[in-house]
Amino acid sequence: MGKPQKNAISPTRVEDYPEWYQQVIKASDMAERAPVRGCMVIKPWGYALWENIVAQMDRMFKATGVKNAYFPLFIPINFLEQEAEHVEGFAKECAVVTHHRLEKGPEGGLVPGGPLTDPLVVRPTSETIIGDSFSKWVSSYRDLPLLINQWANVVRWEMRTRIFLRTSEFLWQEGHTAHATDTEAIERTHMMLKVYTRMVQDYLAIPVIEGRKTAAERFPGAVDTLCIEAMMQDRKALQAGTSHFLGQNFAKASGIRFQTEKEAEDFAWTTSWGTSTRMIGGLIMTHGDDDGVIMPPRVAPAHVVLLPIYRKPEEREQVMAYVSELADTLRKIRYADRDLVVEIDDRDIGGARGWDWIKKGIPLRVEIGPRDMAKDSVFVGRRDHGHREKTAMPREAFISGLTDILDEIQDHLFQRACRFRDDNTRKVDDREEFYAWFTPKSVEKPEIHGGFALSPWCGDAACEATIKEDLNVTIRCIPLDREEEKGKCICCGKPSNGRVVFAKAY
Amino acid sequence: MGKPQKNAISPTRVEDYPEWYQQVIKASDMAERAPVRGCMVIKPWGYALWENIVAQMDRMFKATGVKNAYFPLFIPINFLEQEAEHVEGFAKECAVVTHHRLEKGPEGGLVPGGPLTDPLVVRPTSETIIGDSFSKWVSSYRDLPLLINQWANVVRWEMRTRIFLRTSEFLWQEGHTAHATDTEAIERTHMMLKVYTRMVQDYLAIPVIEGRKTAAERFPGAVDTLCIEAMMQDRKALQAGTSHFLGQNFAKASGIRFQTEKEAEDFAWTTSWGTSTRMIGGLIMTHGDDDGVIMPPRVAPAHVVLLPIYRKPEEREQVMAYVSELADTLRKIRYADRDLVVEIDDRDIGGARGWDWIKKGIPLRVEIGPRDMAKDSVFVGRRDHGHREKTAMPREAFISGLTDILDEIQDHLFQRACRFRDDNTRKVDDREEFYAWFTPKSVEKPEIHGGFALSPWCGDAACEATIKEDLNVTIRCIPLDREEEKGKCICCGKPSNGRVVFAKAY
Ligand SMILES: [Zn+2]
Ligand SMILES: [Zn+2]
Repeated sequence: MGKPQKNAISPTRVEDYPEWYQQVIKASDMAERAPVRGCMVIKPWGYALWENIVAQMDRMFKATGVKNAYFPLFIPINFLEQEAEHVEGFAKECAVVTHHRLEKGPEGGLVPGGPLTDPLVVRPTSETIIGDSFSKWVSSYRDLPLLINQWANVVRWEMRTRIFLRTSEFLWQEGHTAHATDTEAIERTHMMLKVYTRMVQDYLAIPVIEGRKTAAERFPGAVDTLCIEAMMQDRKALQAGTSHFLGQNFAKASGIRFQTEKEAEDFAWTTSWGTSTRMIGGLIMTHGDDDGVIMPPRVAPAHVVLLPIYRKPEEREQVMAYVSELADTLRKIRYADRDLVVEIDDRDIGGARGWDWIKKGIPLRVEIGPRDMAKDSVFVGRRDHGHREKTAMPREAFISGLTDILDEIQDHLFQRACRFRDDNTRKVDDREEFYAWFTPKSVEKPEIHGGFALSPWCGDAACEATIKEDLNVTIRCIPLDREEEKGKCICCGKPSNGRVVFAKAY
Repeated sequence: MGKPQKNAISPTRVEDYPEWYQQVIKASDMAERAPVRGCMVIKPWGYALWENIVAQMDRMFKATGVKNAYFPLFIPINFLEQEAEHVEGFAKECAVVTHHRLEKGPEGGLVPGGPLTDPLVVRPTSETIIGDSFSKWVSSYRDLPLLINQWANVVRWEMRTRIFLRTSEFLWQEGHTAHATDTEAIERTHMMLKVYTRMVQDYLAIPVIEGRKTAAERFPGAVDTLCIEAMMQDRKALQAGTSHFLGQNFAKASGIRFQTEKEAEDFAWTTSWGTSTRMIGGLIMTHGDDDGVIMPPRVAPAHVVLLPIYRKPEEREQVMAYVSELADTLRKIRYADRDLVVEIDDRDIGGARGWDWIKKGIPLRVEIGPRDMAKDSVFVGRRDHGHREKTAMPREAFISGLTDILDEIQDHLFQRACRFRDDNTRKVDDREEFYAWFTPKSVEKPEIHGGFALSPWCGDAACEATIKEDLNVTIRCIPLDREEEKGKCICCGKPSNGRVVFAKAY
């Protein structure tokens, strides 16, 4: 597959991880910066991945009784004023619409005209406007639970942006539910976290730790924030999804009242939960290598690319006929709730062709030339293996074993990511060791360092703040399955009941 | 099913069509006005319909090689300045973002802060920003054709709004393609019109006329605008989709250049095509009756509602077990690329229960009580039949015949709509007759009148303008399949080569 080449992506992960990330996205053709500050264009290869994630997750939501709806893009400013705490968290940096017309300006160009009496905010989240609807939709316990999800674009004005990880506009889903009892709302909070875990682990092949945020890291206004935390290959944490139990706080702010079975009046108990295109950043940083992206088969935009090989023009017709027929056969196979997506690439560009698909991370590359045809075999390269490691397989065996191979790749990616995370997770009980681990040796250009430190914490926000201040390390979560364990706080030495996950984070 | 009731919706279509439309939407629980001027909240029942439309149409797009992508919500003002003609058509009334922060104002509330040097427009269409991307993505004939579609929300500041038909924000898809030759682009323009026709006729069960817009009604900047036009039950036309051949105009404005096979440089030939949530308004106005919405089975949010009937509490368990089992059986049946969606409604609200589902337009209502169970039969009401017209059917026959019944309903709705349209379409050759037909008898509260007039036109824009001015009647389209026919222009009497479709329109 082309002339010798060390790696497709420069710099490598070790050389410069942030720059590697940008280059991988470029090389895979998934997305690019938009001409609008802080925004991105999601290109077909990246968007198809998003569509697959959406389709799977949407199916999981619906299986729990959730229904989709759509709420307006614009939010009246006074909606945000109602919820002071919420605004502190979110709406400070957001796009504000103040005019509803363009007019010819004095210098010929277009200028804003038609000022609005009440400016509108472009939703940074739909929390408040969904709350307003809920207050109208709910009047009796019979209307509960109300289980609503929205797939939409949101805008948060970001100063430093990175494609998929932090952009001014991004795509996401936000679920909002209202319940008659706290028990039911808490159950729902956990249920949706489990859906996220299932999605991220079983489909994106990213291992996560399920946990609870500390008060300092909690969603503004939430009683309890659950999250899933994953480790990227620079050993930083990425929060891949959150699920909030909002108690009655949100219902009080939005006026979601209902008549109980006993004819009393009460406020509903609500939850909210969200994930976004950020997951794509997590997928790239979990599986990508120095040759590009690696797509987990269950969400891959395409599963197999067929690469016809012919030297003489007269071979072309034969090879293409064989390839087309194989593609038709493969496209009838179902895998992870989809028909297999098969690409045929017959561009005459030499070795660059195979490399293009390696960089895009397609799970399987299949070369087919006259010699393979003569033996009725195919020459298969797996993206999770080295790029030279290719195997000849009888055509029939390849077809009948294809979904197993894809499952193997899916599993391999997950296991590899688990191993990486475990290798970079340590129980740290000593303050000096903790500080040393989270301090890069090179200050100018920090090397990849640290990881997940499982360390005792006394529960005091002051200790949490000190560590954040000193090292830019935060408590990612208190694992839901942690065991009680007597210890001494990694910061102050006071008694601790158990370990929490400390890490640098995206 | 409840006590005698003449009609579920008041006023009826004949009494007050526009008000009937609002009441039907309310009664069906599909959508409601948002607290933001001119915007709507699409509720679960309405949004599920949209999801089904999206899924089907998306499949059709992809089958023609189109890929989805996502472009930013915001458009720099100077992008709109580039295309003068385009701006005249669209961008005058649009939301303008001028600030990127909210700050505490002098009176305590929040006010816009952080003024932008260059204001941004919330996309009224993504034409220009997609053009910018295309100009970067295309450099050689090898990059063509480029076939891209986007599903997104767009904003056009509307003063008079009606849910689904004209709202400040709506959901839509816009397809954009670039080609190396005019022939190929023209073919694509027609191909996508055919996709729309198939979607609207075969799935929404709305008959359409495929045609070409006159120069006056053409999309700004287009060389040719094709459209599909449907007749609503107030006999007005609704444009349900458009497909534009843009020649090289758009490529010139956006700089979409490519190197040809002969190594010359040329501008690409482009097309664009779009449909929106407006189709839902069309569906309601085509099929709805004085009892509410009627959902065509192929896109219905749900296909069947099971209504358990029991008088004594001890019957409940038995009936519910029977109903659940039936639901499970039905949910395994595939229909129109989906698993059947089956609702169970066991609310204890008497006759209102059945009426709720009639108003929502679910294709089939199935009552099941102890007597039905004893005979192993079900009691079935079809939404396309009168609400009293219900039939007992053996359970097995119902299950095995279900997809046939749904097909029958789908077909019946389409045939009924065809009949209605044909009954209200006339060849009109006489100017007086034309004016009389399009003039309501009651001026104060115009009754339903007019329809589609197939009348000769000389081709002169002045005649078109006169008729629009006099009657608010426009040329909806020049039918693609019209026959040459010598005649005299309905307006000026000069020679005409064929008939065009005149109508009042949404
Ligand atoms: Zn401490
Ligand atoms: Zn004329």
